[in-house]
Amino acid sequence: MFKVLADVGTDAAIEYARKHPSDFLAQLREFLRIPSISTRKEHDGDVRRAAEWLAQNMREAGLENVKLFPTMGHPIVYGDWLHAADAPTVLFYGHYDVQPADDLDLWKTPPFEPDIRKESIYARGCSDDKGQVLLLVKAVESFLQGAGSLPVNVKFMIEGEEETGGENIAKFIPEKLELLSADVAYVADTAFADYNRPAIVYGLRGMAAINIDIEGPRLDLHSGSYGGAINNPINALTHIIAKLKDEDGRVLIPGFYDNVEPLSERERTLLNENEIDIDNWRAWTGAPELWGEPDFSLQERLGARPTLDVNGIIGGYTGEGSKTIIPSKAHAKITMRLVPQQDPQQVMQNLIDYVTELAPASVTLKFEPSHTAPASINDLDHPAMKAAAAACKEIFGRSPLYKREGGSIPIVGQMQRDLGVETILLGFGLPHDRIHAPNERFHLPNFYNGIETVVHFLANYAELG
Amino acid sequence: MFKVLADVGTDAAIEYARKHPSDFLAQLREFLRIPSISTRKEHDGDVRRAAEWLAQNMREAGLENVKLFPTMGHPIVYGDWLHAADAPTVLFYGHYDVQPADDLDLWKTPPFEPDIRKESIYARGCSDDKGQVLLLVKAVESFLQGAGSLPVNVKFMIEGEEETGGENIAKFIPEKLELLSADVAYVADTAFADYNRPAIVYGLRGMAAINIDIEGPRLDLHSGSYGGAINNPINALTHIIAKLKDEDGRVLIPGFYDNVEPLSERERTLLNENEIDIDNWRAWTGAPELWGEPDFSLQERLGARPTLDVNGIIGGYTGEGSKTIIPSKAHAKITMRLVPQQDPQQVMQNLIDYVTELAPASVTLKFEPSHTAPASINDLDHPAMKAAAAACKEIFGRSPLYKREGGSIPIVGQMQRDLGVETILLGFGLPHDRIHAPNERFHLPNFYNGIETVVHFLANYAELG
Repeated sequence: MFKVLADVGTDAAIEYARKHPSDFLAQLREFLRIPSISTRKEHDGDVRRAAEWLAQNMREAGLENVKLFPTMGHPIVYGDWLHAADAPTVLFYGHYDVQPADDLDLWKTPPFEPDIRKESIYARGCSDDKGQVLLLVKAVESFLQGAGSLPVNVKFMIEGEEETGGENIAKFIPEKLELLSADVAYVADTAFADYNRPAIVYGLRGMAAINIDIEGPRLDLHSGSYGGAINNPINALTHIIAKLKDEDGRVLIPGFYDNVEPLSERERTLLNENEIDIDNWRAWTGAPELWGEPDFSLQERLGARPTLDVNGIIGGYTGEGSKTIIPSKAHAKITMRLVPQQDPQQVMQNLIDYVTELAPASVTLKFEPSHTAPASINDLDHPAMKAAAAACKEIFGRSPLYKREGGSIPIVGQMQRDLGVETILLGFGLPHDRIHAPNERFHLPNFYNGIETVVHFLANYAELG
Repeated sequence: MFKVLADVGTDAAIEYARKHPSDFLAQLREFLRIPSISTRKEHDGDVRRAAEWLAQNMREAGLENVKLFPTMGHPIVYGDWLHAADAPTVLFYGHYDVQPADDLDLWKTPPFEPDIRKESIYARGCSDDKGQVLLLVKAVESFLQGAGSLPVNVKFMIEGEEETGGENIAKFIPEKLELLSADVAYVADTAFADYNRPAIVYGLRGMAAINIDIEGPRLDLHSGSYGGAINNPINALTHIIAKLKDEDGRVLIPGFYDNVEPLSERERTLLNENEIDIDNWRAWTGAPELWGEPDFSLQERLGARPTLDVNGIIGGYTGEGSKTIIPSKAHAKITMRLVPQQDPQQVMQNLIDYVTELAPASVTLKFEPSHTAPASINDLDHPAMKAAAAACKEIFGRSPLYKREGGSIPIVGQMQRDLGVETILLGFGLPHDRIHAPNERFHLPNFYNGIETVVHFLANYAELG
């Protein structure tokens, strides 16, 4: 493949990285100790502390112009190094906020006290996304401290609201078009297909999230005294939810599939090259049986088909024992995952219209629309895509797989639209990292190899870009 | 109607009752201050304290042989007075335990700090059932302290587990057939039709309660990464619940109505004499619209038809903000209210079989059957029924209405079966007492008039029994 250009400092950078694994690990532990849960107001101070910690780490790495841009919510950490004349510019994106850590009882070790077991570090946010953000910084540090310079220009834009929908970075980007201008974006917030099986994500699902409240009687009523004569909001809610998606996973909202284009043969081939060991997959998820739309493969269901899930439901008495009531209300949190041809706002409106039509007059409805994000598809023939593929081959000995990811990284669509850049999504998580769940972990060999992969990516891109 | 027999001491008893209203009220406040929530382990000590308080109050009233019978759960308070030779014996039943008081935020004053506003006292358990238990004791006290004797023999059996299903009293009764032998039972745990509109409940619905757990993946999964390929336990649960009852309230479990006899014309006439002001009823419940089985009147739906309600549901993320997961499990608490011809155990089994058949192989099910109770119907021509009706006329100036109550008082069916006694269900609550809900209240005129009504009932029954 490519000859590594010794004169851009790759060897020196790799040498530096290999000399400092325990420093890097100690820094990762520090970063993970900060409970930067962006969805919980009581953690606002921790989120700020994580931003400041990261900014300081970036300064020490050799990045310049490092600062926190305030937003209406949590700050955006920016830093750059722009001394590679005539070389392209890479805009790195990641996030320093994390998901909530409940249910705490299910964590083997506390979520904000990083613990190493076998080859993995366990802590909330280690894979999603602090470990991956830090490895980007360490790759750049390896060039700057090991070789004295970078082969390309770099900019970092690391946000603190990815887990809450990233509304403020969506406003920040159009206001800072010049500051953020770049030739390509690089996002490390995705996962390998398996150990030593790097994967480049070229498509991401979009999202539309909404909460629904159903209210019936104005207070909880005795289910004996009133049962049979008062519509129960929980029963009404289940009738509605049952009509949103059939039992095979096909969404029933009118118009939902109107703009969804059939998958091309080329895409189906590419996607189905991502081998999935069904037994392992089943053992990992613990789901008793494979499930989903009958006309699509598991690979297709996982990233290339839109879907709908209830993320949470609550109503009535949920404590110990029983309480014989007809509850006054019930609540559901719903997210839909969308493919590129679907307009999130339109899909959301279709859901609202449909639920409104389904709801009987004996209950009242409240909708709380939450975040939306368009899906995205990136160009497989971009020079940076080739540079990333070559880096994978150099470090892991094989070309990456190409896949469409089921999760949403709304910023990718926005950077494409506002900054005119394609995004390389080459992340270093593993499919079983338990992101968003108890006992989240990050495979440490991927942390160290990730640093070297990004070093090679930057060198390759300097040559190809 | 009846001539009150001055020589049984009725006048003296009434005089005594009218001299001690503030003492009675002070005792009621004391009783209500004890948070005897039987479904919560942390309140076990309080439940015991309520039993001891009641026993002491009964002793001071003049009852004899007062003691706490231990059970596997909370104790049963017993006491008697058996010196009315050749007179019949009344077995009083009530319960000193109360429902949980959440949601605490919705209480205008704290649930265990009784507050009087206008003519009502507000506290958890004031109407259901402490206020009613205490008025029975005060009626007996009025005879014993005011007249020196009672015109009939009385026994009290007051339990502490009515709100948890009363499993232990169900074992206690068959073990104490001699101790509890009586000619009739009297239960004050029901409500008037309206202010000054006493009602005798001659039928009670039974119950079958069950909790269902549905499990999917072994841990919460990212709804983007796995959505479309893992059956979501909440979605699966809503599909199942939606098939338990249709949107008009008709239960869909196979066999559910098999033994349900059509209502006779005589019963329909009696039941529909219970006038319901639909506008008031709607305003009280706050339900946007009347609802229920189209072929039955509101009165019939409320007590004479079986039904099914989800009392509580929970699954996934229910905190502030959002969390994009496919949850690992979902939980629902379900109760069915049954009519006399239905066998609770059979109905429960039918539900289990049906849900098992409905559940897809992509989730696993766990059932936790909870309490059951048969429905009951009492003889409208019993002498004690007539004595109670006469007492109503004496105190409230009109005959009582006769109704079937939607709630379950399983002990009524059991006393009929084990002790061979009919039960008079003449309670002094009001339909809007908010039992089981925040801001439960008890209309104080019904507390005082209830004492006098029970005094007259005992005198009348001595004559008729």
